Amino acid sequence: MSSTTNDIPASSSLRPILYVIKIGGNIIDNADKLENFLEQYASFNKSRTGVHSILIHGGGKLATSLAGQLNIQQQLVDGRRVTDAETLKIVTMVYAGYINKNIVSKLQAYGLNALGLSGADGNVLLAHKRGADSTLGTKGVDYGFVGDLDKVNTSLLATLVKDSFSPVIAPITHDGHGQLLNTNADTIAQEIATAMSSQFDVTLVYTFEKKGVLTDAENDSTLIQKITPGFYKELKNRNIVFAGMIPKLDNAFSALGSGVSKVMIGKAEELYQLLNGETGTSIIPQ
Amino acid sequence: MSSTTNDIPASSSLRPILYVIKIGGNIIDNADKLENFLEQYASFNKSRTGVHSILIHGGGKLATSLAGQLNIQQQLVDGRRVTDAETLKIVTMVYAGYINKNIVSKLQAYGLNALGLSGADGNVLLAHKRGADSTLGTKGVDYGFVGDLDKVNTSLLATLVKDSFSPVIAPITHDGHGQLLNTNADTIAQEIATAMSSQFDVTLVYTFEKKGVLTDAENDSTLIQKITPGFYKELKNRNIVFAGMIPKLDNAFSALGSGVSKVMIGKAEELYQLLNGETGTSIIPQ
Repeated sequence: MSSTTNDIPASSSLRPILYVIKIGGNIIDNADKLENFLEQYASFNKSRTGVHSILIHGGGKLATSLAGQLNIQQQLVDGRRVTDAETLKIVTMVYAGYINKNIVSKLQAYGLNALGLSGADGNVLLAHKRGADSTLGTKGVDYGFVGDLDKVNTSLLATLVKDSFSPVIAPITHDGHGQLLNTNADTIAQEIATAMSSQFDVTLVYTFEKKGVLTDAENDSTLIQKITPGFYKELKNRNIVFAGMIPKLDNAFSALGSGVSKVMIGKAEELYQLLNGETGTSIIPQ
Repeated sequence: MSSTTNDIPASSSLRPILYVIKIGGNIIDNADKLENFLEQYASFNKSRTGVHSILIHGGGKLATSLAGQLNIQQQLVDGRRVTDAETLKIVTMVYAGYINKNIVSKLQAYGLNALGLSGADGNVLLAHKRGADSTLGTKGVDYGFVGDLDKVNTSLLATLVKDSFSPVIAPITHDGHGQLLNTNADTIAQEIATAMSSQFDVTLVYTFEKKGVLTDAENDSTLIQKITPGFYKELKNRNIVFAGMIPKLDNAFSALGSGVSKVMIGKAEELYQLLNGETGTSIIPQ
Protein backbone atom coordinates (compact mmCIF):
# COMPACT_ATOMS: atom_id res chain seq x y z
CA MET A 1 0.00 0.00 0.00
CA SER A 2 1.24 3.52 -0.77
CA SER A 3 1.84 5.99 1.99
CA THR A 4 -0.01 9.28 1.86
CA THR A 5 0.57 12.53 3.66
CA ASN A 6 -2.62 11.87 5.64
CA ASP A 7 -1.18 8.75 7.24
CA ILE A 8 -0.99 8.98 10.99
CA PRO A 9 2.56 8.21 12.06
CA ALA A 10 3.05 5.10 14.19
CA SER A 11 3.18 6.73 17.58
CA SER A 12 3.47 4.93 20.89
CA SER A 13 0.54 6.94 22.19
CA LEU A 14 -1.81 5.22 19.71
CA ARG A 15 -1.24 1.82 21.23
CA PRO A 16 -3.06 0.82 24.44
CA ILE A 17 -0.96 1.26 27.58
CA LEU A 18 0.45 -1.80 29.32
CA TYR A 19 2.46 -1.98 32.54
CA VAL A 20 4.61 -5.09 32.98
CA ILE A 21 5.44 -5.14 36.68
CA LYS A 22 7.92 -7.37 38.44
CA ILE A 23 7.60 -7.82 42.19
CA GLY A 24 10.80 -8.89 43.93
CA GLY A 25 11.34 -11.86 46.21
CA ASN A 26 11.99 -9.97 49.43
CA ILE A 27 8.57 -8.30 49.23
CA ILE A 28 6.95 -11.72 48.75
CA ASP A 29 8.65 -12.96 51.92
CA ASN A 30 6.97 -10.25 53.98
CA ALA A 31 3.19 -10.81 54.27
CA ASP A 32 2.45 -7.18 55.26
CA LYS A 33 4.57 -5.64 52.49
CA LEU A 34 3.06 -8.05 49.95
CA GLU A 35 -0.49 -7.21 51.04
CA ASN A 36 0.31 -3.50 50.85
CA PHE A 37 1.84 -3.88 47.37
CA LEU A 38 -1.16 -5.89 46.09
CA GLU A 39 -3.62 -3.36 47.45
CA GLN A 40 -1.78 -0.57 45.59
CA TYR A 41 -1.53 -2.73 42.46
CA ALA A 42 -5.29 -3.37 42.46
CA SER A 43 -6.07 0.24 43.29
CA PHE A 44 -3.90 1.57 40.43
CA ASN A 45 -5.45 -0.86 37.95
CA LYS A 46 -8.99 0.01 38.98
CA SER A 47 -8.34 3.75 38.88
CA ARG A 48 -7.23 3.80 35.24
CA THR A 49 -9.60 2.73 32.50
CA GLY A 50 -7.93 1.42 29.36
CA VAL A 51 -4.66 0.81 31.18
CA HIS A 52 -3.58 -2.84 31.39
CA SER A 53 -1.12 -4.65 33.66
CA ILE A 54 0.72 -7.93 33.88
CA LEU A 55 2.34 -8.93 37.18
CA ILE A 56 5.43 -11.19 37.32
CA HIS A 57 6.54 -12.47 40.69
CA GLY A 58 9.80 -13.96 41.87
CA GLY A 59 10.30 -16.71 44.37
CA GLY A 60 11.38 -15.39 47.73
CA LYS A 61 13.03 -17.50 50.38
CA LEU A 62 10.26 -20.08 50.87
CA ALA A 63 11.64 -22.46 48.22
CA THR A 64 15.10 -22.39 49.81
CA SER A 65 13.76 -22.94 53.32
CA LEU A 66 11.48 -25.75 52.12
CA ALA A 67 14.43 -27.43 50.38
CA GLY A 68 16.37 -27.12 53.64
CA GLN A 69 13.53 -28.69 55.66
CA LEU A 70 13.37 -31.56 53.18
CA ASN A 71 17.18 -31.99 53.25
CA ILE A 72 17.52 -31.29 49.55
CA GLN A 73 21.07 -30.11 48.99
CA GLN A 74 21.39 -26.93 46.95
CA GLN A 75 24.20 -27.33 44.42
CA LEU A 76 26.09 -24.32 43.11
CA VAL A 77 28.06 -24.17 39.84
CA ASP A 78 30.16 -21.02 39.37
CA GLY A 79 28.19 -19.46 42.22
CA ARG A 80 24.81 -20.09 40.56
CA ARG A 81 22.18 -22.44 41.86
CA VAL A 82 21.52 -25.67 39.96
CA THR A 83 17.89 -26.72 39.53
CA ASP A 84 17.95 -30.50 39.93
CA ALA A 85 14.76 -32.60 39.67
CA GLU A 86 13.90 -32.24 43.38
CA THR A 87 14.55 -28.49 43.35
CA LEU A 88 12.36 -28.11 40.25
CA LYS A 89 9.56 -29.92 42.10
CA ILE A 90 9.91 -27.48 45.01
CA VAL A 91 10.03 -24.29 42.91
CA THR A 92 7.02 -25.52 40.90
CA MET A 93 5.10 -26.06 44.13
CA VAL A 94 6.18 -22.80 45.75
CA TYR A 95 6.22 -20.38 42.78
CA ALA A 96 3.34 -21.71 40.61
CA GLY A 97 1.33 -23.04 43.58
CA TYR A 98 1.68 -21.28 46.91
CA ILE A 99 2.93 -17.82 45.91
CA ASN A 100 0.96 -17.51 42.67
CA LYS A 101 -2.39 -18.61 44.13
CA ASN A 102 -1.98 -16.45 47.24
CA ILE A 103 -1.30 -13.37 45.11
CA VAL A 104 -4.28 -14.20 42.86
CA SER A 105 -6.69 -14.70 45.77
CA LYS A 106 -5.58 -11.44 47.42
CA LEU A 107 -6.00 -9.48 44.17
CA GLN A 108 -9.45 -11.04 43.73
CA ALA A 109 -10.28 -9.79 47.23
CA TYR A 110 -9.23 -6.28 46.13
CA GLY A 111 -11.65 -6.52 43.21
CA LEU A 112 -9.18 -7.28 40.42
CA ASN A 113 -9.95 -10.26 38.18
CA ALA A 114 -6.51 -11.87 38.57
CA LEU A 115 -5.62 -15.08 36.75
CA GLY A 116 -2.43 -16.95 37.58
CA LEU A 117 -0.31 -18.57 34.91
CA SER A 118 2.82 -20.63 34.74
CA GLY A 119 4.54 -20.71 31.37
CA ALA A 120 2.87 -24.03 30.53
CA ASP A 121 -0.65 -22.63 30.97
CA GLY A 122 -2.00 -21.75 27.54
CA ASN A 123 1.63 -22.20 26.33
CA VAL A 124 2.29 -18.64 27.50
CA LEU A 125 6.09 -18.96 27.99
CA LEU A 126 7.92 -21.46 25.83
CA ALA A 127 11.56 -22.10 26.77
CA HIS A 128 14.36 -24.57 26.23
CA LYS A 129 16.58 -26.21 28.81
CA ARG A 130 19.80 -24.22 29.09
CA GLY A 131 22.64 -26.24 27.63
CA ALA A 132 20.28 -28.22 25.41
CA ASP A 133 21.86 -26.39 22.46
CA SER A 134 25.40 -27.36 21.53
CA THR A 135 26.93 -23.89 21.99
CA LEU A 136 26.17 -23.84 25.71
CA GLY A 137 26.96 -27.53 26.03
CA THR A 138 30.58 -26.90 25.18
CA LYS A 139 30.95 -24.77 28.29
CA GLY A 140 30.29 -27.94 30.25
CA VAL A 141 28.06 -26.20 32.79
CA ASP A 142 24.79 -27.93 33.57
CA TYR A 143 22.36 -25.73 35.51
CA GLY A 144 19.77 -28.53 35.46
CA PHE A 145 16.14 -27.67 34.77
CA VAL A 146 16.72 -24.00 34.00
CA GLY A 147 14.91 -22.60 30.98
CA ASP A 148 15.89 -19.82 28.60
CA LEU A 149 12.87 -18.19 26.98
CA ASP A 150 12.13 -18.73 23.29
CA LYS A 151 8.63 -17.35 22.85
CA VAL A 152 6.03 -15.28 24.69
CA ASN A 153 2.43 -16.04 23.70
CA THR A 154 1.51 -12.37 23.16
CA SER A 155 -1.83 -13.30 21.62
CA LEU A 156 -3.04 -14.98 24.85
CA LEU A 157 -1.72 -12.17 27.09
CA ALA A 158 -3.26 -9.48 24.87
CA THR A 159 -6.63 -11.28 24.88
CA LEU A 160 -6.55 -11.64 28.65
CA VAL A 161 -5.72 -8.01 29.43
CA LYS A 162 -8.24 -6.73 26.86
CA ASP A 163 -10.88 -8.96 28.51
CA SER A 164 -10.05 -7.25 31.86
CA PHE A 165 -8.11 -10.11 33.37
CA SER A 166 -4.97 -9.33 35.38
CA PRO A 167 -2.43 -12.03 34.51
CA VAL A 168 -0.13 -13.04 37.38
CA ILE A 169 2.89 -14.91 36.07
CA ALA A 170 5.02 -17.39 38.03
CA PRO A 171 8.66 -17.85 36.93
CA ILE A 172 8.13 -21.44 35.76
CA THR A 173 8.25 -22.09 32.00
CA HIS A 174 7.92 -25.25 29.86
CA ASP A 175 9.64 -26.67 26.79
CA GLY A 176 6.55 -27.87 24.91
CA HIS A 177 7.63 -31.49 25.40
CA GLY A 178 6.25 -31.94 28.91
CA GLN A 179 9.20 -30.52 30.84
CA LEU A 180 8.71 -27.65 33.28
CA LEU A 181 11.69 -25.31 33.71
CA ASN A 182 12.87 -22.72 36.25
CA THR A 183 13.37 -19.28 34.65
CA ASN A 184 14.58 -15.99 36.12
CA ALA A 185 11.63 -13.67 36.85
CA ASP A 186 13.52 -10.45 35.92
CA THR A 187 14.23 -11.93 32.49
CA ILE A 188 10.61 -13.07 32.06
CA ALA A 189 9.43 -9.54 32.85
CA GLN A 190 11.84 -8.05 30.31
CA GLU A 191 10.92 -10.58 27.60
CA ILE A 192 7.17 -10.13 28.14
CA ALA A 193 7.58 -6.34 28.05
CA THR A 194 9.59 -6.52 24.83
CA ALA A 195 7.24 -8.99 23.12
CA MET A 196 4.11 -7.06 24.08
CA SER A 197 5.53 -3.76 22.77
CA SER A 198 4.47 -4.64 19.22
CA GLN A 199 0.85 -4.18 20.31
CA PHE A 200 1.09 -2.03 23.45
CA ASP A 201 2.87 1.07 24.70
CA VAL A 202 4.78 -0.80 27.41
CA THR A 203 6.28 0.45 30.65
CA LEU A 204 8.44 -2.17 32.38
CA VAL A 205 8.54 -1.74 36.16
CA TYR A 206 10.95 -3.46 38.55
CA THR A 207 9.88 -3.13 42.17
CA PHE A 208 12.06 -4.09 45.10
CA GLU A 209 13.05 -2.92 48.60
CA LYS A 210 14.98 0.20 47.52
CA LYS A 211 13.74 3.60 46.35
CA GLY A 212 15.30 3.00 42.91
CA VAL A 213 18.82 3.30 41.56
CA LEU A 214 20.94 4.82 44.31
CA THR A 215 24.49 6.18 44.24
CA ASP A 216 24.78 4.90 47.82
CA ALA A 217 22.88 1.60 48.21
CA GLU A 218 22.29 2.29 51.90
CA ASN A 219 20.98 5.83 51.49
CA ASP A 220 17.56 6.41 49.92
CA SER A 221 18.28 10.12 49.55
CA THR A 222 20.88 9.34 46.86
CA LEU A 223 18.15 8.30 44.39
CA ILE A 224 18.89 8.96 40.71
CA GLN A 225 15.63 10.05 39.13
CA LYS A 226 16.44 9.62 35.44
CA ILE A 227 18.99 7.55 33.58
CA THR A 228 19.66 7.84 29.85
CA PRO A 229 22.13 5.54 28.03
CA GLY A 230 24.78 8.29 28.03
CA PHE A 231 24.35 8.94 31.74
CA TYR A 232 24.43 5.19 32.48
CA LYS A 233 27.79 4.92 30.68
CA GLU A 234 29.10 7.76 32.79
CA LEU A 235 27.79 6.21 36.03
CA LYS A 236 29.43 2.88 35.17
CA ASN A 237 32.74 4.54 34.19
CA ARG A 238 32.81 6.40 37.48
CA ASN A 239 31.80 3.21 39.41
CA ILE A 240 28.89 5.08 40.92
CA VAL A 241 26.15 2.41 40.51
CA PHE A 242 26.57 -0.49 42.91
CA ALA A 243 27.29 -3.82 41.22
CA GLY A 244 23.99 -5.48 42.16
CA MET A 245 22.06 -2.98 40.07
CA ILE A 246 24.04 -3.51 36.86
CA PRO A 247 22.21 -6.65 35.58
CA LYS A 248 18.86 -4.88 36.19
CA LEU A 249 20.03 -1.77 34.33
CA ASP A 250 21.50 -3.81 31.46
CA ASN A 251 18.10 -5.58 31.27
CA ALA A 252 16.36 -2.22 31.29
CA PHE A 253 18.40 -0.75 28.42
CA SER A 254 18.05 -3.98 26.45
CA ALA A 255 14.24 -3.70 26.82
CA LEU A 256 14.33 -0.02 25.78
CA GLY A 257 16.32 -0.97 22.69
CA SER A 258 13.68 -3.53 21.74
CA GLY A 259 10.48 -1.50 21.76
CA VAL A 260 9.67 -0.91 25.43
CA SER A 261 8.82 2.79 25.97
CA LYS A 262 10.06 3.24 29.52
CA VAL A 263 11.57 1.28 32.39
CA MET A 264 11.02 2.23 36.01
CA ILE A 265 12.79 0.92 39.08
CA GLY A 266 11.51 1.63 42.55
CA LYS A 267 10.17 0.64 45.92
CA ALA A 268 7.36 -1.96 46.02
CA GLU A 269 5.77 -0.16 48.99
CA GLU A 270 5.50 3.02 46.91
CA LEU A 271 4.03 1.35 43.84
CA TYR A 272 1.24 3.85 43.34
CA GLN A 273 3.56 6.89 43.36
CA LEU A 274 6.12 4.98 41.30
CA LEU A 275 3.58 4.24 38.55
CA ASN A 276 2.46 7.86 38.66
CA GLY A 277 6.08 8.94 38.11
CA GLU A 278 6.34 10.63 41.50
CA THR A 279 9.18 8.48 42.80
CA GLY A 280 11.77 5.90 41.70
CA THR A 281 14.23 5.86 38.84
CA SER A 282 13.08 6.24 35.22
CA ILE A 283 15.24 4.62 32.56
CA ILE A 284 14.59 6.36 29.27
CA PRO A 285 16.03 6.04 25.74
CA GLN A 286 17.29 9.63 25.57
CA MET B 1 -42.93 -14.32 22.78
CA SER B 2 -45.65 -16.73 21.69
CA SER B 3 -44.88 -20.34 21.01
CA THR B 4 -45.64 -21.73 17.58
CA THR B 5 -45.87 -25.27 16.30
CA ASN B 6 -42.63 -24.64 14.38
CA ASP B 7 -40.64 -24.13 17.57
CA ILE B 8 -37.83 -26.61 17.94
CA PRO B 9 -38.12 -28.25 21.35
CA ALA B 10 -35.27 -27.59 23.77
CA SER B 11 -33.29 -30.73 23.16
CA SER B 12 -29.99 -31.60 24.77
CA SER B 13 -28.56 -32.37 21.33
CA LEU B 14 -28.79 -28.69 20.34
CA ARG B 15 -26.30 -27.64 22.99
CA PRO B 16 -22.56 -28.13 22.40
CA ILE B 17 -21.16 -31.25 24.01
CA LEU B 18 -19.01 -30.96 27.13
CA TYR B 19 -17.24 -33.69 29.07
CA VAL B 20 -16.41 -32.88 32.70
CA ILE B 21 -13.80 -35.47 33.65
CA LYS B 22 -12.45 -36.20 37.13
CA ILE B 23 -9.16 -38.05 37.43
CA GLY B 24 -8.66 -39.84 40.73
CA GLY B 25 -5.73 -39.49 43.11
CA ASN B 26 -4.32 -43.00 42.72
CA ILE B 27 -3.80 -42.44 39.00
CA ILE B 28 -1.96 -39.19 39.75
CA ASP B 29 0.38 -41.07 42.10
CA ASN B 30 1.52 -43.34 39.28
CA ALA B 31 3.58 -41.46 36.64
CA ASP B 32 3.03 -44.11 33.93
CA LYS B 33 -0.72 -44.38 34.48
CA LEU B 34 -1.03 -40.58 34.55
CA GLU B 35 0.95 -40.21 31.32
CA ASN B 36 -1.20 -42.88 29.67
CA PHE B 37 -4.41 -41.19 30.85
CA LEU B 38 -3.28 -37.76 29.61
CA GLU B 39 -2.29 -39.16 26.22
CA GLN B 40 -5.78 -40.67 25.85
CA TYR B 41 -7.40 -37.45 27.10
CA ALA B 42 -5.53 -35.36 24.52
CA SER B 43 -6.17 -37.89 21.78
CA PHE B 44 -9.93 -37.99 22.49
CA ASN B 45 -10.15 -34.19 22.55
CA LYS B 46 -8.25 -33.79 19.30
CA SER B 47 -10.28 -36.49 17.52
CA ARG B 48 -13.63 -34.79 18.11
CA THR B 49 -14.33 -31.36 16.68
CA GLY B 50 -16.91 -29.34 18.56
CA VAL B 51 -16.57 -31.50 21.65
CA HIS B 52 -15.22 -29.72 24.74
CA SER B 53 -13.68 -31.03 27.96
CA ILE B 54 -12.79 -29.82 31.43
CA LEU B 55 -10.42 -31.91 33.56
CA ILE B 56 -10.58 -31.89 37.36
CA HIS B 57 -7.82 -33.59 39.29
CA GLY B 58 -7.60 -34.79 42.86
CA GLY B 59 -4.58 -34.75 45.09
CA GLY B 60 -2.96 -38.14 45.42
CA LYS B 61 -0.62 -39.10 48.22
CA LEU B 62 2.07 -36.48 47.61
CA ALA B 63 0.47 -33.90 49.94
CA THR B 64 0.25 -36.46 52.76
CA SER B 65 3.84 -37.63 52.30
CA LEU B 66 5.10 -34.05 52.12
CA ALA B 67 3.22 -33.20 55.34
CA GLY B 68 4.88 -36.24 56.92
CA GLN B 69 8.36 -35.19 55.80
CA LEU B 70 7.74 -31.71 57.23
CA ASN B 71 6.40 -33.17 60.51
CA ILE B 72 3.01 -31.53 60.05
CA GLN B 73 0.55 -33.53 62.11
CA GLN B 74 -2.62 -34.56 60.29
CA GLN B 75 -5.60 -34.00 62.56
CA LEU B 76 -8.78 -36.01 62.15
CA VAL B 77 -12.25 -35.01 63.37
CA ASP B 78 -14.91 -37.72 63.10
CA GLY B 79 -12.53 -39.61 60.81
CA ARG B 80 -12.14 -36.69 58.40
CA ARG B 81 -8.97 -34.77 57.82
CA VAL B 82 -8.75 -31.19 59.11
CA THR B 83 -7.10 -28.62 56.84
CA ASP B 84 -5.12 -26.41 59.21
CA ALA B 85 -3.06 -23.45 57.93
CA GLU B 86 0.07 -25.55 57.33
CA THR B 87 -1.89 -28.28 55.55
CA LEU B 88 -3.60 -25.67 53.36
CA LYS B 89 -0.16 -24.37 52.38
CA ILE B 90 0.90 -27.89 51.40
CA VAL B 91 -2.23 -28.76 49.40
CA THR B 92 -2.02 -25.38 47.62
CA MET B 93 1.58 -26.13 46.67
CA VAL B 94 0.96 -29.73 45.65
CA TYR B 95 -2.49 -29.52 44.01
CA ALA B 96 -2.40 -26.05 42.37
CA GLY B 97 1.37 -26.10 41.79
CA TYR B 98 3.08 -29.42 41.26
CA ILE B 99 0.21 -31.66 40.07
CA ASN B 100 -1.66 -29.00 38.07
CA LYS B 101 1.39 -27.67 36.21
CA ASN B 102 2.72 -31.15 35.47
CA ILE B 103 -0.63 -32.19 33.97
CA VAL B 104 -0.79 -28.95 31.95
CA SER B 105 2.75 -29.30 30.56
CA LYS B 106 2.12 -32.95 29.59
CA LEU B 107 -1.14 -32.07 27.82
CA GLN B 108 0.65 -29.24 26.00
CA ALA B 109 3.21 -31.83 24.84
CA TYR B 110 0.32 -33.91 23.47
CA GLY B 111 -0.86 -30.90 21.49
CA LEU B 112 -3.74 -29.83 23.70
CA ASN B 113 -3.89 -26.16 24.74
CA ALA B 114 -4.30 -26.86 28.46
CA LEU B 115 -4.67 -24.05 30.98
CA GLY B 116 -4.52 -24.77 34.69
CA LEU B 117 -6.78 -23.03 37.16
CA SER B 118 -7.31 -22.95 40.88
CA GLY B 119 -10.66 -21.64 42.03
CA ALA B 120 -9.13 -18.19 42.65
CA ASP B 121 -7.93 -17.80 39.06
CA GLY B 122 -10.48 -15.72 37.20
CA ASN B 123 -12.74 -16.29 40.23
CA VAL B 124 -13.70 -19.62 38.70
CA LEU B 125 -14.76 -21.41 41.92
CA LEU B 126 -16.12 -19.29 44.73
CA ALA B 127 -16.61 -21.07 48.05
CA HIS B 128 -17.09 -20.37 51.73
CA LYS B 129 -15.26 -21.86 54.67
CA ARG B 130 -17.28 -24.76 56.04
CA GLY B 131 -18.70 -23.82 59.41
CA ALA B 132 -18.64 -20.13 58.58
CA ASP B 133 -22.44 -20.27 58.47
CA SER B 134 -24.23 -20.73 61.77
CA THR B 135 -26.04 -23.97 60.85
CA LEU B 136 -22.80 -25.88 60.54
CA GLY B 137 -21.26 -24.03 63.44
CA THR B 138 -23.75 -25.59 65.83
CA LYS B 139 -22.34 -29.01 65.05
CA GLY B 140 -19.15 -27.77 66.65
CA VAL B 141 -16.95 -29.42 64.04
CA ASP B 142 -14.17 -27.29 62.55
CA TYR B 143 -12.60 -28.82 59.47
CA GLY B 144 -10.33 -25.80 59.10
CA PHE B 145 -9.73 -24.32 55.68
CA VAL B 146 -12.23 -26.51 53.85
CA GLY B 147 -14.47 -24.80 51.33
CA ASP B 148 -18.02 -25.60 50.24
CA LEU B 149 -18.74 -24.34 46.74
CA ASP B 150 -21.09 -21.41 46.21
CA LYS B 151 -20.62 -20.48 42.56
CA VAL B 152 -19.02 -21.80 39.40
CA ASN B 153 -17.94 -19.08 36.93
CA THR B 154 -19.62 -20.75 33.94
CA SER B 155 -19.00 -17.71 31.76
CA LEU B 156 -15.20 -18.04 32.05
CA LEU B 157 -15.23 -21.82 31.57
CA ALA B 158 -17.55 -21.54 28.54
CA THR B 159 -15.33 -18.87 26.97
CA LEU B 160 -12.20 -20.96 27.54
CA VAL B 161 -13.57 -24.18 26.06
CA LYS B 162 -15.13 -22.36 23.08
CA ASP B 163 -11.71 -20.71 22.46
CA SER B 164 -10.18 -24.24 22.34
CA PHE B 165 -8.53 -24.14 25.73
CA SER B 166 -8.60 -27.27 27.89
CA PRO B 167 -9.13 -26.12 31.47
CA VAL B 168 -7.38 -28.23 34.12
CA ILE B 169 -8.85 -27.56 37.55
CA ALA B 170 -7.08 -28.06 40.88
CA PRO B 171 -9.26 -28.72 43.96
CA ILE B 172 -8.36 -25.41 45.63
CA THR B 173 -11.10 -22.76 45.84
CA HIS B 174 -11.25 -19.26 47.34
CA ASP B 175 -13.74 -17.24 49.35
CA GLY B 176 -13.40 -13.92 47.48
CA HIS B 177 -11.86 -12.33 50.57
CA GLY B 178 -8.29 -13.54 50.00
CA GLN B 179 -8.64 -16.96 51.62
CA LEU B 180 -7.79 -20.11 49.67
CA LEU B 181 -9.73 -23.24 50.64
CA ASN B 182 -9.40 -27.00 50.19
CA THR B 183 -12.40 -28.51 48.37
CA ASN B 184 -13.22 -32.09 47.43
CA ALA B 185 -12.45 -32.74 43.75
CA ASP B 186 -15.42 -35.14 43.22
CA THR B 187 -17.76 -32.41 44.42
CA ILE B 188 -16.08 -29.77 42.22
CA ALA B 189 -16.54 -32.05 39.19
CA GLN B 190 -20.22 -32.54 40.01
CA GLU B 191 -20.85 -28.83 40.61
CA ILE B 192 -19.04 -27.77 37.42
CA ALA B 193 -20.98 -30.39 35.43
CA THR B 194 -24.28 -29.21 36.90
CA ALA B 195 -23.56 -25.50 36.41
CA MET B 196 -22.35 -25.96 32.82
CA SER B 197 -25.44 -27.95 31.84
CA SER B 198 -27.42 -24.74 31.28
CA GLN B 199 -25.24 -24.08 28.21
CA PHE B 200 -23.82 -27.51 27.34
CA ASP B 201 -24.98 -31.08 26.94
CA VAL B 202 -22.81 -32.37 29.80
CA THR B 203 -21.45 -35.84 30.47
CA LEU B 204 -19.80 -36.14 33.90
CA VAL B 205 -17.06 -38.78 34.01
CA TYR B 206 -15.42 -40.19 37.14
CA THR B 207 -12.25 -42.12 36.37
CA PHE B 208 -10.43 -44.26 38.90
CA GLU B 209 -8.61 -47.58 39.24
CA LYS B 210 -11.67 -49.86 38.78
CA LYS B 211 -13.58 -50.82 35.62
CA GLY B 212 -16.68 -49.02 36.96
CA VAL B 213 -19.38 -49.97 39.47
CA LEU B 214 -18.80 -53.61 40.39
CA THR B 215 -20.94 -56.02 42.37
CA ASP B 216 -17.68 -57.51 43.67
CA ALA B 217 -15.11 -54.73 44.20
CA GLU B 218 -12.26 -57.19 43.61
CA ASN B 219 -13.59 -58.67 40.38
CA ASP B 220 -13.64 -56.56 37.21
CA SER B 221 -15.90 -59.08 35.47
CA THR B 222 -18.77 -58.10 37.80
CA LEU B 223 -19.10 -54.67 36.10
CA ILE B 224 -22.59 -53.18 36.00
CA GLN B 225 -22.95 -51.47 32.62
CA LYS B 226 -26.03 -49.32 33.24
CA ILE B 227 -27.65 -47.96 36.38
CA THR B 228 -31.00 -46.18 36.43
CA PRO B 229 -32.46 -44.67 39.63
CA GLY B 230 -34.80 -47.67 40.03
CA PHE B 231 -32.00 -50.17 39.59
CA TYR B 232 -29.78 -48.20 42.02
CA LYS B 233 -32.49 -48.42 44.67
CA GLU B 234 -32.67 -52.17 44.14
CA LEU B 235 -28.86 -52.51 44.31
CA LYS B 236 -28.75 -50.57 47.57
CA ASN B 237 -31.67 -52.53 49.08
CA ARG B 238 -29.93 -55.80 48.25
CA ASN B 239 -26.58 -54.44 49.56
CA ILE B 240 -24.98 -55.28 46.22
CA VAL B 241 -22.97 -52.08 45.70
CA PHE B 242 -19.96 -51.82 47.99
CA ALA B 243 -20.10 -48.94 50.45
CA GLY B 244 -17.21 -46.95 48.95
CA MET B 245 -19.16 -46.43 45.73
CA ILE B 246 -22.28 -44.99 47.37
CA PRO B 247 -21.09 -41.35 47.74
CA LYS B 248 -19.97 -41.37 44.07
CA LEU B 249 -23.34 -42.79 42.94
CA ASP B 250 -25.30 -40.37 45.13
CA ASN B 251 -23.22 -37.56 43.53
CA ALA B 252 -23.98 -38.99 40.10
CA PHE B 253 -27.75 -39.13 40.59
CA SER B 254 -27.71 -35.65 42.13
CA ALA B 255 -25.95 -34.35 38.98
CA LEU B 256 -28.45 -36.16 36.74
CA GLY B 257 -31.31 -34.56 38.65
CA SER B 258 -29.79 -31.11 38.05
CA GLY B 259 -29.34 -31.02 34.29
CA VAL B 260 -26.37 -33.29 33.57
CA SER B 261 -27.24 -35.66 30.69
CA LYS B 262 -25.17 -38.67 31.66
CA VAL B 263 -22.66 -39.80 34.27
CA MET B 264 -19.99 -42.39 33.52
CA ILE B 265 -17.72 -44.20 35.96
CA GLY B 266 -14.76 -46.23 34.78
CA LYS B 267 -11.07 -47.02 34.58
CA ALA B 268 -8.68 -44.12 33.94
CA GLU B 269 -6.44 -46.39 31.83
CA GLU B 270 -9.41 -47.09 29.52
CA LEU B 271 -10.47 -43.46 29.14
CA TYR B 272 -10.80 -43.55 25.36
CA GLN B 273 -13.12 -46.59 25.36
CA LEU B 274 -14.97 -45.21 28.39
CA LEU B 275 -15.76 -41.93 26.62
CA ASN B 276 -16.81 -43.88 23.54
CA GLY B 277 -19.27 -45.84 25.69
CA GLU B 278 -17.45 -49.15 25.14
CA THR B 279 -16.66 -49.82 28.79
CA GLY B 280 -17.45 -48.61 32.32
CA THR B 281 -20.75 -47.92 34.05
CA SER B 282 -23.27 -45.46 32.65
CA ILE B 283 -25.56 -43.73 35.13
CA ILE B 284 -28.66 -42.59 33.31
CA PRO B 285 -31.88 -40.87 34.38
CA GLN B 286 -34.14 -43.67 33.14
